[in-house]
Amino acid sequence: MPVPLTVPAAAPTRLGPEETAAIERAIGSVVANGPWIGGPAVEGFESDFASYLGAREVVGVGNGTDALALAFASLELPPGSGVLVAATEGGYAATAARQVGLEPIVMDVDPETLMPTVTTAEAALESSRSVPVSAVVVTHLHGDAVELSALDPWRRMRGLRLVEDCAQAAGLRVGGSHVGLTGDVATFSFYPTKNLGALGDGGALAFTDRDLAARTRVLAQYGWTERYRIGVPGGRNSRLDSLQAAILSARLPFLDTRNATRRAISARYRITLAPVARFYGDAETTIAHHAVAVGDSRDALADHLNARGIHTAHHYPFLDNEMPGLELSDSTPPPAANRLRDQSVSLPCFPELEGQEIDHVIAALEEWVDVRD
Amino acid sequence: MPVPLTVPAAAPTRLGPEETAAIERAIGSVVANGPWIGGPAVEGFESDFASYLGAREVVGVGNGTDALALAFASLELPPGSGVLVAATEGGYAATAARQVGLEPIVMDVDPETLMPTVTTAEAALESSRSVPVSAVVVTHLHGDAVELSALDPWRRMRGLRLVEDCAQAAGLRVGGSHVGLTGDVATFSFYPTKNLGALGDGGALAFTDRDLAARTRVLAQYGWTERYRIGVPGGRNSRLDSLQAAILSARLPFLDTRNATRRAISARYRITLAPVARFYGDAETTIAHHAVAVGDSRDALADHLNARGIHTAHHYPFLDNEMPGLELSDSTPPPAANRLRDQSVSLPCFPELEGQEIDHVIAALEEWVDVRD
Repeated sequence: MPVPLTVPAAAPTRLGPEETAAIERAIGSVVANGPWIGGPAVEGFESDFASYLGAREVVGVGNGTDALALAFASLELPPGSGVLVAATEGGYAATAARQVGLEPIVMDVDPETLMPTVTTAEAALESSRSVPVSAVVVTHLHGDAVELSALDPWRRMRGLRLVEDCAQAAGLRVGGSHVGLTGDVATFSFYPTKNLGALGDGGALAFTDRDLAARTRVLAQYGWTERYRIGVPGGRNSRLDSLQAAILSARLPFLDTRNATRRAISARYRITLAPVARFYGDAETTIAHHAVAVGDSRDALADHLNARGIHTAHHYPFLDNEMPGLELSDSTPPPAANRLRDQSVSLPCFPELEGQEIDHVIAALEEWVDVRD
Repeated sequence: MPVPLTVPAAAPTRLGPEETAAIERAIGSVVANGPWIGGPAVEGFESDFASYLGAREVVGVGNGTDALALAFASLELPPGSGVLVAATEGGYAATAARQVGLEPIVMDVDPETLMPTVTTAEAALESSRSVPVSAVVVTHLHGDAVELSALDPWRRMRGLRLVEDCAQAAGLRVGGSHVGLTGDVATFSFYPTKNLGALGDGGALAFTDRDLAARTRVLAQYGWTERYRIGVPGGRNSRLDSLQAAILSARLPFLDTRNATRRAISARYRITLAPVARFYGDAETTIAHHAVAVGDSRDALADHLNARGIHTAHHYPFLDNEMPGLELSDSTPPPAANRLRDQSVSLPCFPELEGQEIDHVIAALEEWVDVRD
């Protein structure tokens, strides 16, 4: 009897030999030569990633949540003002807002696109009469783009700043352009499981406005306007390690190919599950950070897969409204996000999945569809 | 003619072959096996470092400033209350206090011990009538201990919590015990030049109280009380990378020997400069994170050394009061700290200095004393 196949939900250490060799070279160079904070490795990655994105400037920081908090701080939003965040965003933007004294205001998502829209944003704005709203965060969740062609003009009309959370969207292009350049600032996370992952924590902000980038650099290092002198308020210490920067530069050339592999895996899942479930985003553009199937009987599908050794995940099991630590005025989940949360299951989707693992998942999904259809 | 000798102020990449090999083994293991966030490497270091310190528990975090902010947050100090910090502390504790909505209140230092005392702390407390003070931070600056035998009972009498900033004091023992265990919490930085340095940013908190440690763990990871659920307010993302944790465990066995070497170098400086300058702390216990000579004609001494290829530094060129970003109510530097700032120069002092480099510094100091004495 064959050993039952186990398929992990994620496996960040499982990398191809070429990418592993590039990472090891990058580490070896920084370990031997330094510097271990800042210096050419960080400057090099900031430059490499800005070129890749088509951004004017990139600032490396400690992690993606710090990137969000620094985005808010550098935009100098009025103290206590509101920031619109999608209920489905996992709490990252909301907790970053709280860190810098801002009030998260929750948007529902559209039941069709599964993302916030002008309608849901406008409703959230209306609900927040007592708190003036100063900004909106769009989270390009799971590697799928929030549609901005209507949202961006709307937020401009409303006088709101726009932060694009691209933590799950490194490499995501819509109409040939990388996401993140429509808003005032884009934020990235390089958590190891991310499409572009470090071997530890890391993050970045991308800008088209160099002044905003310069302000962020100051805020990310204590508010120092010169070495050892805190010249502006609101600073913290949040730096991208030189080691991680060198690793990210080494991994960046592999990103588009790896994203294409994710897209291909997700396409097979989409086609197979089409009779019973749909997926976030667009099969043509997605970079499938997560392959989230959305449909009824989510728990039964997860059980079915788990029983066959296929690990699944849930991104995310709690809406922002359901997180007491965010201290939101309204703990009632908005209806579409509430339903979506109960319908979502993340299937194994990363570029180093082996052919037989993918086949095993596909077979299990086909079996499921046969039973349910 | 011999090439003039240049002596750097610090050289964190210059490590002995045995320590380098240990670091490379640690990196190789984490790179190959993961996990790259949390896991055995982080747990192992937390356990190793707690044993080394004699603490009940250690929590690894992203950097030393985050450690201070998390210390304040986990102590649940009243919002807006005051935190006493020494004017000489470099602004790290003050900026951390500001991050969590607390008001830094500046203490002067004693002109003899160069550190805060009951007298300077009491004066700062008196000066802060409009803001209730909830805590005091003692910074064991330059690798020298703040004397706590009177300060600790005083702060208890005043109902203040005590945070010991040990960023520059890893390995510092007084009366056989490691500093940091008198207060409610001790904070550490593993910035590469620190006595125990990572190859990037890193920090930790050490506790005798397990409940406080548990609260800190929650606050250091978004306020999650379970995965993906922000259960308590005030969270951020601040983790010690597994890579850095493994490196720190590899370096910890070298710490006491390296500190003894620092102490021996600083002892030679102390003896040589005795006629014209004094040093922080105690020659017997110091771990000489910096070897700070304090005396008149500081600029002339620095010029004298720099002209001989000997790099010097200034820790720190600005007092907390002189940092506009801290938004202190009083920007007047307290008198003893003000004088000390103008008298201080940091001499090259790290364990990997070569014998001829130390001899070169000593010769230059002797020359200086001959001229000045």
